Parts: sequence; structure tokens; C-alpha cells
Amino acid sequence: MNGQIANTAIQVTSDPARVAVIINKQNLTHEYISKSGEFAVSVLDESATMTFIGPFGFRSGREIDKLSKVQYKKGSTGSPLVTQHSLSVLEARVIDKVNLGTHTIFIGDVVNAEVLREGHPLTYRYYHEHLKGKTSKHAPTYNPAEQTEKARS
Amino acid sequence: MNGQIANTAIQVTSDPARVAVIINKQNLTHEYISKSGEFAVSVLDESATMTFIGPFGFRSGREIDKLSKVQYKKGSTGSPLVTQHSLSVLEARVIDKVNLGTHTIFIGDVVNAEVLREGHPLTYRYYHEHLKGKTSKHAPTYNPAEQTEKARS
Repeated sequence: MNGQIANTAIQVTSDPARVAVIINKQNLTHEYISKSGEFAVSVLDESATMTFIGPFGFRSGREIDKLSKVQYKKGSTGSPLVTQHSLSVLEARVIDKVNLGTHTIFIGDVVNAEVLREGHPLTYRYYHEHLKGKTSKHAPTYNPAEQTEKARS
Repeated sequence: MNGQIANTAIQVTSDPARVAVIINKQNLTHEYISKSGEFAVSVLDESATMTFIGPFGFRSGREIDKLSKVQYKKGSTGSPLVTQHSLSVLEARVIDKVNLGTHTIFIGDVVNAEVLREGHPLTYRYYHEHLKGKTSKHAPTYNPAEQTEKARS
């Protein structure tokens, strides 16, 4: 079991319920999804703190046990569903994937989903503006020049 | 030339700059992207009105000329770049696509991009909360039950 922050997890069709996640090939999660053909998504809300996000976004599951300090439960597929700071959770089975170079897009059919509470989903804009978060070099949106500008400002 | 609102246009990698759009197979734009292997994206901002959005979201280019009433310019690929209510525009060449059932995901390499102005991108949340917009039945996120609830409320 492992977890990571993804800034690119989207619904792709509603009938059937189908979602996609874009994962960096260097991430442990990439290895796990490739092998298991399954993944889970927890939709974080604006209550998430940098302390909570940090390990998931900037550390590897090869070095630390990311789930040891957060609330989660096991889903029907065996994937961990992080329930802390989460509005909803879902599990999906991979039906297709596309090699994007540095990343892979995994497309999956939703096999289980649950709304945990009402609230505002954590957006990348909120993360940057309110939590002053940086972009991981493994993110699909990483831009070295932008990070340098931010460090200087 | 044609245009449509897409609620699912995302960056998928940064090196090379690569984007994806998810388009309903019934849309004229789907036919045009399939044939040309090219598409353009205009990132709308919060100044966009329902009068501006409406034709792009709820009418077909088979019935009306959607570009006749908006400001746009032709890009290097020949695709129309809507500059009105737009923060930035980009053009992409399709390198891969995936059949998602009702929709297709087109993945493209960015061949041209321009920032027009600074501002806040129009999100789906802003659209629903501030513009009181509905979801097109062609959207990847369409949910018939949700629309009925909204109509009743």
C-alpha cells in the first residue's frame, strides 16, 4: 500500500463512471498501479494542511510509510482509502493506459465510491495561494523556471 | 472551424508540453479533431458570461456559427483561438487518443501557446456557484439525477 498527491485525477465519462489519473513513472505508486491494475482516489478538501500533504507530495513510499500517520481504511479492492481531510473516496480498475513519456495516464472503471462529507475540494490554486505549496518535480505541471521564480520572491 | 466548452482539458506532462482534452463523440468538434489531428484550447476566465458560454456549451456547430459573435484569431495550425474572456490560448497536435465509450481523450503536443492576460481561470465550481450554470448532457461529468435535483431546487 502507498499513496501520493496527484494534481491530475479527473472524471472522463459518467456512463459508465470512469476516471483517469496521471502518474509519474518514477513514483512507487506507478509501480503499484501497473502491477495491481487498480487504484484509489481520495478527494482532499481545503482543511488539508502542509504537514498532511507534505509526505504524500514530496517523499517516496520507498523511504517512509506514508499511511502510518493518517486515517485510512482498506477498500474493497485492497487499496488504501485516505479518509482524513477527504470529501470522498473511490476505487477503480484500470481498463486502459497511455504512455505519455515521463508519465502514464491510467484510465479506470469506478468499482466503489463513497461521499464522506460535504465541503470544498482542495484545488491546485488553493494549494498555491493559501497553503503556499510548491510543485513537486514529479508533477505533470512541473516547471523548473517557475520554481526558481517562487524561491526568489 | 468550430468551438465548444470542455470541462476536461488538462496538462499531462511538462517536458514535452503535452495536454489532453476529453470530447463527446457526438460533438462536431470531435469530428474536426479526428480529421485534422489538431485542436486549440482557450482558457476562459471568470469574466465569461452565460451569454458568451451558452452557445459553446449547449448548441451545436452543425446548427449555428459559434464563432460569428466572439473575438478570435486564427492560430498557426489554422484552429480558431478565442481571445475574448480568455487568459491564454494554445494549439496542439494529436499524438494519441483513447476510446472511452461515449467520449474520446485526445492527447496532443503543444505547438503554440500564448498568455493573453493575468487573471483567474473559470472553474467548473465557479461556473456552477456564480453563473448558476448547468451541465451539458454531452459533458464527461453529466449526471441526469443531479440535473433533476437542480431543476427542482
